[in-house]
Amino acid sequence: MTERLSAQFAFLNEADRLKSVLRATTLCDGSRRENSGEHSWHLALYAMVLADQAGPEVRIDRVIRMLLIHDLVEIDVGDVPIHSANGAAHASTETQAAEQRAADRIFGLLPPDQAATFRALWDEFEAAETPDAVFAKSLDRVQPVMANLQSGGGTWITYNVTAEQLETRVGAKVARGAPLLWDWVKAQTKSFFA
Amino acid sequence: MTERLSAQFAFLNEADRLKSVLRATTLCDGSRRENSGEHSWHLALYAMVLADQAGPEVRIDRVIRMLLIHDLVEIDVGDVPIHSANGAAHASTETQAAEQRAADRIFGLLPPDQAATFRALWDEFEAAETPDAVFAKSLDRVQPVMANLQSGGGTWITYNVTAEQLETRVGAKVARGAPLLWDWVKAQTKSFFA
Repeated sequence: MTERLSAQFAFLNEADRLKSVLRATTLCDGSRRENSGEHSWHLALYAMVLADQAGPEVRIDRVIRMLLIHDLVEIDVGDVPIHSANGAAHASTETQAAEQRAADRIFGLLPPDQAATFRALWDEFEAAETPDAVFAKSLDRVQPVMANLQSGGGTWITYNVTAEQLETRVGAKVARGAPLLWDWVKAQTKSFFA
Repeated sequence: MTERLSAQFAFLNEADRLKSVLRATTLCDGSRRENSGEHSWHLALYAMVLADQAGPEVRIDRVIRMLLIHDLVEIDVGDVPIHSANGAAHASTETQAAEQRAADRIFGLLPPDQAATFRALWDEFEAAETPDAVFAKSLDRVQPVMANLQSGGGTWITYNVTAEQLETRVGAKVARGAPLLWDWVKAQTKSFFA
C-alpha cells in the first residue's frame, strides 16, 4: 500500500501545477486571468447545476470526473485559447501529439490500474463522441461565454470575435450537447454583439 | 425554463467569487497562496484518486459533489485557517452563524429544488456524521498537509505548529475517515517535525 500511496501522491502533487496554468479568460470580475485548476472546479459545478440540460443517457457523475481531469495535460502543454489563431484553427497535429505525451507522463504517475482508468476517461473526453463527453465539452465551451459576459467582453475583445465566429467556434459545440442551453446563452450575448 | 436558467447562472456566476477567497496554505511550489476554488478542485481530485482509502459504505461521487460545494460559504465569511487562533479553537458560534447566513444566501440563488438539495449536502458535510461527510472532511484536512510538505513547512511555520498540534488538529480528523492514509501521511511529516 505504501507504494500505491506514493504513486497516488506523486500524481496529486503534480496536479497542483494546474493552478499555475493561465487561461485567456479572466474571472467574472475581470480582476485577473483564470487558471485551469479553478476553471476545472467551476466546470464540475456547472455539471452539478446544469444536469437537467443533459440528455437522459448522460451520467452526470462521469461528466464531473471527466471535467476534473480534462485539462491536466495543460501542465505540460499550456492552454490554447479557443479564439486565438491556434485555437480557432483547431488543435494542430503537433499540439495533439504533445497532449498525448503529457497524458502518458501525468496519468502515468498513478498506480497502473488508475492510470488506465483516468487515461481512458480523458481519451473519451478528447474524442467527444459519447453522450457524457459531448455534454462535458458543451460545458467547457459555455463557461468562458459567461465569464466574458460578466467581465464586459473579455476574450471577445482581445481577439476581435464576431457573432458569426462565436456561433461557429462556441455555439455549435455547446448546442451539440445542450441545445436549449445555447439558445438561452446566445440570447444573453445579443446585446454585446449588437 | 428561462427563469430556471437565470437562477442557475446567478448561482454559477456568484460561485466564481470563490476563486478570490485566499487560504493560508500556499501552492505546493510556495509561489502564492491557494484560493478556495482551486482548493475545491484539488480536493475533488483527491477523492477520485484516494477512493480506495474510504470505507465500503462511502459513495465517492457524493463525496466529490460535497467537496465541490463545501467552501462556497467562504465567499461571504472567508477562510478560517485551521492553525490560526480562531481555527484551532474551532469555529466560534459567531462564525457558524455567519456561515449559515451565507449558505442561506448563496444556495438560495438556485431554483428551489436545487437550493434544497445543495443545502442538504452542505449541511451533511458540516455535521461530519455520515460516512461520506467524514471521508470528505479527512481529505479536506490532508491536502494542506501535503502542500506544507511540498513547500517546506508552509502554515506550520507561519503558526509555529508542533507535532502534537498537528496530531490533534489534523491527524485525529484525517484518521477518523481514513486511518491508513493518516499513518502514511504522518510518516512523511516525521522529518519536518524531528
